[in-house]
Amino acid sequence: MRIYLDCYPCFLRQALSAARHAGGTESQQFEVLRRVLRLLEALPSGKTPPEIGHQVHRIVREVVGAGDPYAEVKTESTRRALQLYPRLKRLVSESADPLDTAVRLSIAGNIIDFAAADHQPDLWQTVQRMLDIPYAIDRLALLRTRLAEADWILFMADNAGETVFDRLLLEVLPTHVRYAVKGGPVLNDATWADAIAAGVDACAEIVDTGSNAPGTILSLCSEEFRRLFAEAPLVIAKGQANYETLSGVSERVFCLLQVKCPVIASDIGVPVGSAVVHQCGTSGSE
Amino acid sequence: MRIYLDCYPCFLRQALSAARHAGGTESQQFEVLRRVLRLLEALPSGKTPPEIGHQVHRIVREVVGAGDPYAEVKTESTRRALQLYPRLKRLVSESADPLDTAVRLSIAGNIIDFAAADHQPDLWQTVQRMLDIPYAIDRLALLRTRLAEADWILFMADNAGETVFDRLLLEVLPTHVRYAVKGGPVLNDATWADAIAAGVDACAEIVDTGSNAPGTILSLCSEEFRRLFAEAPLVIAKGQANYETLSGVSERVFCLLQVKCPVIASDIGVPVGSAVVHQCGTSGSE
Repeated sequence: MRIYLDCYPCFLRQALSAARHAGGTESQQFEVLRRVLRLLEALPSGKTPPEIGHQVHRIVREVVGAGDPYAEVKTESTRRALQLYPRLKRLVSESADPLDTAVRLSIAGNIIDFAAADHQPDLWQTVQRMLDIPYAIDRLALLRTRLAEADWILFMADNAGETVFDRLLLEVLPTHVRYAVKGGPVLNDATWADAIAAGVDACAEIVDTGSNAPGTILSLCSEEFRRLFAEAPLVIAKGQANYETLSGVSERVFCLLQVKCPVIASDIGVPVGSAVVHQCGTSGSE
Repeated sequence: MRIYLDCYPCFLRQALSAARHAGGTESQQFEVLRRVLRLLEALPSGKTPPEIGHQVHRIVREVVGAGDPYAEVKTESTRRALQLYPRLKRLVSESADPLDTAVRLSIAGNIIDFAAADHQPDLWQTVQRMLDIPYAIDRLALLRTRLAEADWILFMADNAGETVFDRLLLEVLPTHVRYAVKGGPVLNDATWADAIAAGVDACAEIVDTGSNAPGTILSLCSEEFRRLFAEAPLVIAKGQANYETLSGVSERVFCLLQVKCPVIASDIGVPVGSAVVHQCGTSGSE
């Protein structure tokens, strides 16, 4: 997905939020803002929002310092999600259509997103809403067919805590899953440790992208991951940043997400708040 | 009030919103954004947010063209407010404390504000809320005393439509009022024509600031207006931009506003959504 004009104020908001999460002083926050202003002034064309997000977070790391500013937030998100896990597991096992229920729960978990907003809505309310509403884009039938045909599945993770919700889906998928997390911390995106804390290692093989960029920017991923991606018969990609970076890449990619941002809503053609099972197109490199 | 870091993303949002209201093409909107980015990079210190807002709107006029982009919005706001006027008038005349009720209604009208947000809440719901809640800052008793002592009152208007709500207050004020509108169109701020459309000329003398800057930036106002301001025994100033520009200027200024922005909320020390009757201090030029 291309960068829209409405992304500009949002990049500044994200920069400020990330600088504060990283514990930046007022003058460090100011320096981050100034450097992001310069970045936005000279924005190269043909980039996706997460590619700029990646540069924003690099600026924050350079000005405020490296580390994992969202470590606490991620631990807490995982803890809260694990508390819900037994109730969620029962919802799946008692469902007439466990795959549909598990897809909905995985999408419900996508509400845990510190890139979209600092204020996080109630998890259980989100679960109930996601079980009730129709998908605004519904390619579940096609996804079901592709799942039955695929030898293995590449699953692009999104946020820590959401990993617990993904685990419910991984547990009903019919074949081997490689669950791809980030190669290093960025925002509240799941890393290896977050996937293990969520118990994902019990039902999937954890791999990493080799990159700490938001979304899946293939050019920044490790060669090993790029090979996996190229060979994967089916890719399930979670969340907005994966939609933004993969929407034009391959028809093998199915995006599961909650639409939280008005720009993405308009790009994908559904209202904010929608649950989406979207098959990507090939406007891009494949 | 000084510029906070959170104002930066908001300036970009406002620039984009104003460029769109003015009918700017995508490339004009982009040019506005680029020029505002450069402006923000070299922000002089000691400015208030409306001073930057003024420059943002000047950029929009230069890039997209002059005129009154909010003309339709203002006419519609005044029309909707006039529809409520008879009900509002009855609320005041039947009140045990007509001044308090009229102050609350004038503050309720401050919800009409296209600088704070593009989405405008329901007017009547806002009226009911403003009649119910306590003032988060309550200098009404002091304002009452000052009203009884003042020979005349300078009343700094804010937005078109809000003018109708102000009229209810003007009608119960005990003395002559000079109602100051903007010298030219900016955002949905009231100009001479908007005040007359609201019927303000029947109960006050309309004057203008000689400036089309948001808020009251005295250095940009006409000499005639600056003299009026200096001589006014009491100033009632409506809305956020007047708070931002006058909060440090004089103890003769009382601000009536709804707090709609988290930065102003934090500056004034009350929650977003609050109704405020605030006496300004003299941290500034007086």
